[in-house]
Amino acid sequence: MLTLYYTPGTCALAVRIALEEAAAPHQLVRVDFAAGQQRTPEYLAINPKGRVPALVTPQGTLTETPALLAYVAQAFPQAGLAPADPYGFARMQEFHSYLASTVHVAHAHRPRASRWADEPEAQAAMQRKVPQNMTDCFQIIETHYLSEGPWVLGDQYSVADGYLFTVASWLKSDGVDIALFPKVHAHTQRMLQRPAVQRALA
Amino acid sequence: MLTLYYTPGTCALAVRIALEEAAAPHQLVRVDFAAGQQRTPEYLAINPKGRVPALVTPQGTLTETPALLAYVAQAFPQAGLAPADPYGFARMQEFHSYLASTVHVAHAHRPRASRWADEPEAQAAMQRKVPQNMTDCFQIIETHYLSEGPWVLGDQYSVADGYLFTVASWLKSDGVDIALFPKVHAHTQRMLQRPAVQRALA
Repeated sequence: MLTLYYTPGTCALAVRIALEEAAAPHQLVRVDFAAGQQRTPEYLAINPKGRVPALVTPQGTLTETPALLAYVAQAFPQAGLAPADPYGFARMQEFHSYLASTVHVAHAHRPRASRWADEPEAQAAMQRKVPQNMTDCFQIIETHYLSEGPWVLGDQYSVADGYLFTVASWLKSDGVDIALFPKVHAHTQRMLQRPAVQRALA
Repeated sequence: MLTLYYTPGTCALAVRIALEEAAAPHQLVRVDFAAGQQRTPEYLAINPKGRVPALVTPQGTLTETPALLAYVAQAFPQAGLAPADPYGFARMQEFHSYLASTVHVAHAHRPRASRWADEPEAQAAMQRKVPQNMTDCFQIIETHYLSEGPWVLGDQYSVADGYLFTVASWLKSDGVDIALFPKVHAHTQRMLQRPAVQRALA
């Protein structure tokens, strides 16, 4: 049994989708960000970084979305959620890493600008730039990563698709119209038709 | 034959170390950031994101440091540079993802603050916060990730060690004394004794 610590609206959704697609036995524990639960001693014992998602496995606790997605894909290989060859797997990791270290970071400068500057004026300046940075990121996704389609890795559906679906769902709140990116928009619609995605959103 | 596009002082060093440790046949191509070479059409055809590292493999080009490290470890398994089991591999990916999406990002707000705000005052505010953020990150690394040692994954040396060595080398320029973190400092000294690291630095 796996236990996923999650908060609605965060990238933990990508891991929920992966767990549903893998038919992995799991339970969910909601971490209440509004109540500051992620900073309690109890939660910091699970994830000293005070963030979600965290996944408790029989061998120990894992954090960081790209690691959790790789774990679910490799621990449940019968679900076929990741390429097995080194190059194909690395292509998937490349996309995960781009989402985590560039796109998620570009987004985070709106709700979490206080991480990177104390002054309110500086935080407001960061927030003003978010729509442009997210637009630039999704232009790369549209033209470079979704050029073949229908999935991130071409014909093979993978855990990367749930991650893209999750990050794309933040565009509206970041002030960017997803319709600017027809392939991303079609990808989102395609994802919404999958029963595993519907269960993860329920 | 692999081709690594790199720039001195960047996280491409982690990949150089991995290639040396794996005894992977490779050639190096230096990208001159000072001359803006990363924004030329020639380089954007290799990496449309305009960054290093990029690794040209017989199957195609890969970017993003965590993906390149996973690729080198998995493509040269005889070097034993990564755990093979899903949990152990995910632990390594977790560390890579933390470095890429939190620690590298914390550092980047000093030299590349212009990515996230246009106003010089806002960029200066971000730069002022870098020492504190890097200190917080390395406190997590010291107490959480290097608690067992001598390597990031405990007894097993892996590609994660070259990545930590690379990011730790930025502390001084970020205004943080590495001696505040005795385990990180000892790790750096241990790395400097490895012939592969010496070759990568040469």
